[in-house]
Amino acid sequence: MKRIGILLFDQVEELDAAGPWEVFGLWATTCPDEASVVSLATSPGPVRAAHGLTFHADRGFADVGELDVLVYPGGRGTRPLLKDTGHLDWVRERRERTPLIASVCTGSLVLAAAGLLRGRPATTHWSCLDLLAELDPSVEVRREDRFVDDGDVVTSAGISAGIDMSLHLVARFAGVERAREIRREMEYDPLPPV
Amino acid sequence: MKRIGILLFDQVEELDAAGPWEVFGLWATTCPDEASVVSLATSPGPVRAAHGLTFHADRGFADVGELDVLVYPGGRGTRPLLKDTGHLDWVRERRERTPLIASVCTGSLVLAAAGLLRGRPATTHWSCLDLLAELDPSVEVRREDRFVDDGDVVTSAGISAGIDMSLHLVARFAGVERAREIRREMEYDPLPPV
Repeated sequence: MKRIGILLFDQVEELDAAGPWEVFGLWATTCPDEASVVSLATSPGPVRAAHGLTFHADRGFADVGELDVLVYPGGRGTRPLLKDTGHLDWVRERRERTPLIASVCTGSLVLAAAGLLRGRPATTHWSCLDLLAELDPSVEVRREDRFVDDGDVVTSAGISAGIDMSLHLVARFAGVERAREIRREMEYDPLPPV
Repeated sequence: MKRIGILLFDQVEELDAAGPWEVFGLWATTCPDEASVVSLATSPGPVRAAHGLTFHADRGFADVGELDVLVYPGGRGTRPLLKDTGHLDWVRERRERTPLIASVCTGSLVLAAAGLLRGRPATTHWSCLDLLAELDPSVEVRREDRFVDDGDVVTSAGISAGIDMSLHLVARFAGVERAREIRREMEYDPLPPV
């Protein structure tokens, strides 16, 4: 049984949070004995995302309890978090207690600022690959990868790549067949028209 | 200037709403003179989605005002709406006032129940293609299409297909280059790993 927490914060990128939620949420709905999903923020309640959609966090940091996976989305709201020492302490403390941290898009910038990517391979949104290298020059920046699985830390490229990463994690936890069922249910057979 | 409303309702599918929001929201953020996005529900406030994520609707039906595009998502919450005569009246009334109705996934079932797809080509989630034909046998069900653009009514296949449809609509309204910029920004170059 995997308990998956999806972090929300002011100016989070909508799809960075909702893409993984769709994948893990479908998993939890169809196999409730295998997974559950919870949203968390500094405190429960409304959270305004980067392009104006409002989410509502179920739990606050203080009462969310233990997680097997923490999904750390990106979005322009990550920029102030890079310098928020209280938040970086929280990220490091959560890292100690959480078997897997999985970032989407610029979420990996915050992981780097917290020192969690030291000497590891990682990726981020294409526009921030250089910034990732600046934040921690020891990071082996993977410029072409859709996501990078380094065991207890997984990072993905920008926005939509969080869906690919989440399907990969379902395959890792529950097998390729389960991940394929979810992919089929959500018709993730994209044919971008442009 | 296009004002795009994304409908929310109890048990809406997360990605059906958040995928189009990402596309149209990126458009509105980068080109605020071209588009804006608003969420609407029967009344403003929290709306629980199909897999447990909570959205927060900005506006209620009474105060949302005029829209250029109404996005009608799917999800298991559509099933009670198929028989909700008050809601079907609202859909028909909105249709009269709204130049474009765009459904995602099983949202098209509600459009069919409201009589809006009579004699038109349309699609839906793969598991509901037969149900769409039952709800209105005059619908020309397109079983293979990712989305169907019939002018003032556009329907898409399941869940993820709403992203493809939304990119198509940006291309229709603002040109292929604008849609490509958005696609690039959201890294919608999927490589499903399973």
